[in-house]
Amino acid sequence: MRTVYLNGEYVAEDQAKVSVFDRGFMFADAIYEVTAVLRGKLVDFDLHVQRLRRSLGEMGMALPFTDEQLLGIHRRLIDLNALDEGLVYLQITRGAEDRNFLYPATGVPQTVVLYTQAKVVLDSPLARRGMNIVGLPDLRWGRSDIKTTQLLYACMAKEQARQQGADDAWLIKDGLVTEGTSNNAFIITADGVVVTRGLSSALLPGVTRGALIALLDEHGLRLEERAFSLEEARAASEAFITSSTSFIYPVVRIDGQAIGDGTPGAMTLRLRQLYIEHALAVLN
Amino acid sequence: MRTVYLNGEYVAEDQAKVSVFDRGFMFADAIYEVTAVLRGKLVDFDLHVQRLRRSLGEMGMALPFTDEQLLGIHRRLIDLNALDEGLVYLQITRGAEDRNFLYPATGVPQTVVLYTQAKVVLDSPLARRGMNIVGLPDLRWGRSDIKTTQLLYACMAKEQARQQGADDAWLIKDGLVTEGTSNNAFIITADGVVVTRGLSSALLPGVTRGALIALLDEHGLRLEERAFSLEEARAASEAFITSSTSFIYPVVRIDGQAIGDGTPGAMTLRLRQLYIEHALAVLN
Repeated sequence: MRTVYLNGEYVAEDQAKVSVFDRGFMFADAIYEVTAVLRGKLVDFDLHVQRLRRSLGEMGMALPFTDEQLLGIHRRLIDLNALDEGLVYLQITRGAEDRNFLYPATGVPQTVVLYTQAKVVLDSPLARRGMNIVGLPDLRWGRSDIKTTQLLYACMAKEQARQQGADDAWLIKDGLVTEGTSNNAFIITADGVVVTRGLSSALLPGVTRGALIALLDEHGLRLEERAFSLEEARAASEAFITSSTSFIYPVVRIDGQAIGDGTPGAMTLRLRQLYIEHALAVLN
Repeated sequence: MRTVYLNGEYVAEDQAKVSVFDRGFMFADAIYEVTAVLRGKLVDFDLHVQRLRRSLGEMGMALPFTDEQLLGIHRRLIDLNALDEGLVYLQITRGAEDRNFLYPATGVPQTVVLYTQAKVVLDSPLARRGMNIVGLPDLRWGRSDIKTTQLLYACMAKEQARQQGADDAWLIKDGLVTEGTSNNAFIITADGVVVTRGLSSALLPGVTRGALIALLDEHGLRLEERAFSLEEARAASEAFITSSTSFIYPVVRIDGQAIGDGTPGAMTLRLRQLYIEHALAVLN
């Protein structure tokens, strides 16, 4: 049985419970982060804390820890659960109070939860096989750049993709792909340019997205930050997704149509390898 | 201390806790209802159960009770808490499981929570004074017709209204009012026509909205179901909101501008009285 961090204590997972009056439960009034773990250490922890502070700030909340304290909790949880590879999940809510849409008065303590989850990251089967993607309308709220727990539509879309025999969905707003249900969307053009949508309120500023863009620059590879349609994606040379615990997965099929020859693209696999080397180099 | 219903048991409110792995907590994967209580009895319970079944159906969930069973739980909770006036809140989530966007396999039990909250309904100060409203952009997701717990933007908007010295916000999409943060929006034209937006995926099918429309018809009052802008609302003779626990509240000011003479409108107050008579007549 796992140990979970809950409001300052390390408890058995079946004891990790929050009030039904928690605003995270009643209002999705909560921010989260997911950080990958390789060899018992954290990948790009600093970037995750940075995004966490931004998300909290957008919601008028503060992080009740220093970076060092938060790193300490992550590390202790990894130790207690002997986690080698997988992730640490963190969620901070605005606390528990009698139901009221208005934010609670100052002094109501936030709820802080962290837990670990084992996951095969480096040797992932999806990284070898590649993903089948379907396009679905993006029905999410207007601030998808904030990492809140308003994830119901992401769940619905991923479930709908599964029911169509696919692995995931790319979401489409005004004819253009915003991102995947829990990942950023990329294509590679015939002349080797990596294309991904520029940051805005319509998509999450992915930590892996940002790290990959830095790697492209470092290796002299070409990048265009612009939106693309699903039609352009279907005609692309290669396609892939990035996320914190998938790193980079090739996309081999979109709405049933093969991308390239329908197998993971060579450049995508190279980028995955570059990213893995980066991740192993920044372990924390 | 209140008694809360949680998964078949009646527990003290400080014991009413759910797993941090509950999908209601992690994904806002949950449906809710709020039913008003007057004189210890429920207002329009049947309509709330009907909407609950619809919301659950849209999410691929079922109601794990008959109407009679659910009514029994509501009544027992009202008794246990000696509630005279206020509300019963109900929330059903897709249950607790290790974090995964995909819906759980069949057999994972839903989480069911109900609690009571005391509230002055009939003699509400806001009903006498009227509400000050500000317009804010509607940034909610594309299925606001489903009563899910993805309520973060409603909280943000209500909080922003408070910070502007107002009581609530009306949300605006493509130049037209969709609804309030937790209520339906109405205006009355100079020639006495009640106007409210027609139902669509952009707004909640309010139980009070529906009951009021039936009352208008019954009393030979004119109704137009169509969208209106905030500009039209500011120039209207009267304005008001409906919600299950507010019934009808006059709106006396929009973005700082007085509606009519800036006091609750006569027709609005008459409609509130008609609705109260209806509510008292259908107690259950």
